[in-house]
Amino acid sequence: VEITAESVADGVTERRFDLKVAGETVPGLHWLPEGEPRATVLLGHGGTGSKRAPNITALAGRLVRECGYAAVALDAPAHGDRMSAEQRAAMEARVAARQQRETPGGRGLAPSLFRSLMDTAPQAAAEWQGLLDELGPGAFGYYGVSMGTVYGMRLLAGEPRISVAALGLGGLLEEEQRRQAAAITIPVLFLFQWDDTLMEREQALALWDAFGSADKTMHVNPGPHGGIPDHERDAVVAFLHRHLG
Amino acid sequence: VEITAESVADGVTERRFDLKVAGETVPGLHWLPEGEPRATVLLGHGGTGSKRAPNITALAGRLVRECGYAAVALDAPAHGDRMSAEQRAAMEARVAARQQRETPGGRGLAPSLFRSLMDTAPQAAAEWQGLLDELGPGAFGYYGVSMGTVYGMRLLAGEPRISVAALGLGGLLEEEQRRQAAAITIPVLFLFQWDDTLMEREQALALWDAFGSADKTMHVNPGPHGGIPDHERDAVVAFLHRHLG
Repeated sequence: VEITAESVADGVTERRFDLKVAGETVPGLHWLPEGEPRATVLLGHGGTGSKRAPNITALAGRLVRECGYAAVALDAPAHGDRMSAEQRAAMEARVAARQQRETPGGRGLAPSLFRSLMDTAPQAAAEWQGLLDELGPGAFGYYGVSMGTVYGMRLLAGEPRISVAALGLGGLLEEEQRRQAAAITIPVLFLFQWDDTLMEREQALALWDAFGSADKTMHVNPGPHGGIPDHERDAVVAFLHRHLG
Repeated sequence: VEITAESVADGVTERRFDLKVAGETVPGLHWLPEGEPRATVLLGHGGTGSKRAPNITALAGRLVRECGYAAVALDAPAHGDRMSAEQRAAMEARVAARQQRETPGGRGLAPSLFRSLMDTAPQAAAEWQGLLDELGPGAFGYYGVSMGTVYGMRLLAGEPRISVAALGLGGLLEEEQRRQAAAITIPVLFLFQWDDTLMEREQALALWDAFGSADKTMHVNPGPHGGIPDHERDAVVAFLHRHLG
């Protein structure tokens, strides 16, 4: 890991770093409290987002200030600083096309897009595992919704160092996910939006049902995919704090 | 209201009182903080329970100590101190018979029992309204699951003095409930147990969906009707505190 910048604001130290994994340079942000962090939460951003997505930086600030934890985010493959101008143009075209389909009668994520996320998940999980190797021993949690849940499930299903996870905005579309979900037995908080235009309600309920965890809770709110209410951030912080101490 | 006993423990004053409503004597408990309460939460117990049910007294203590609120519980019709020896024997027989039916293949509340709760709901709601009249102006919330939700919905659908409600363990079985739910537009937290043997999942989801509230959240946990995890008490306190201030 190479630290490329560092700043301090409101008691939170923010380090910009480059992680080298399997020939890739993965840009990340590491947020740290003043003392030794009591735990570290990995923050996986959603599709089209980045390590600086508003929900990521807001949650990071709260975890550091309110819990004394560290938080860390990586740019996912082909996202953030890893996105070329061509990739950004293609992404913006995809988002615009998708928004046109987001009518009450036009639900559902394109299967080809979902499959491409599943195909990239092993790489994304390997990058998180490379980061865990660099961070060394400690208590770890994971937060990620939407694409952050697709990648997070692949990571959590094979990663014993992470002991708690807040996930959401996902649904059970493929048999591979059922195997991953069954292998996830740590406490899980799962957030779902009742009027999500990308995931069917039944798919989301089935995914939550499939987690192997004895301690799992699903929070459902009205509104679209991107509309998780702010009070759920309180719930995520309380949930992680309850399990990471 | 006649106060029949008063005690103080851990900074919480507990008053036992008798409320007279429509010829009935309704026994209740009023828990108060040391100073002026900032709000009052009405606590509706479940079927076979009473104003001293463990979930009621535990929540009352937390609301008083952590939020500076008052809390108040009434014995519902034919419950607690309002239950004759014959009624208690009949209730215990009903519970025993129901537990025999509670197999994975034997879901569902007996329609006749549910109808009897709906028939008693107007009386239960009138008793709460009599109590609100006695308490005078103030900020009010409501908490009640299972029978406490059947009675609470009847109350909330026609009672503008209550501005927030935590409900749960209920389902949409009758058209009358759909009208009540649509008339409830205050913030609602709804708790549901995924393996409830009395309410079907689809009925619970339909009830949550039917609430007229823009701000509503459903928390789903694994486990049976009586098995709401302790951490949901944290969520109820946080939810009431967020709305009552």
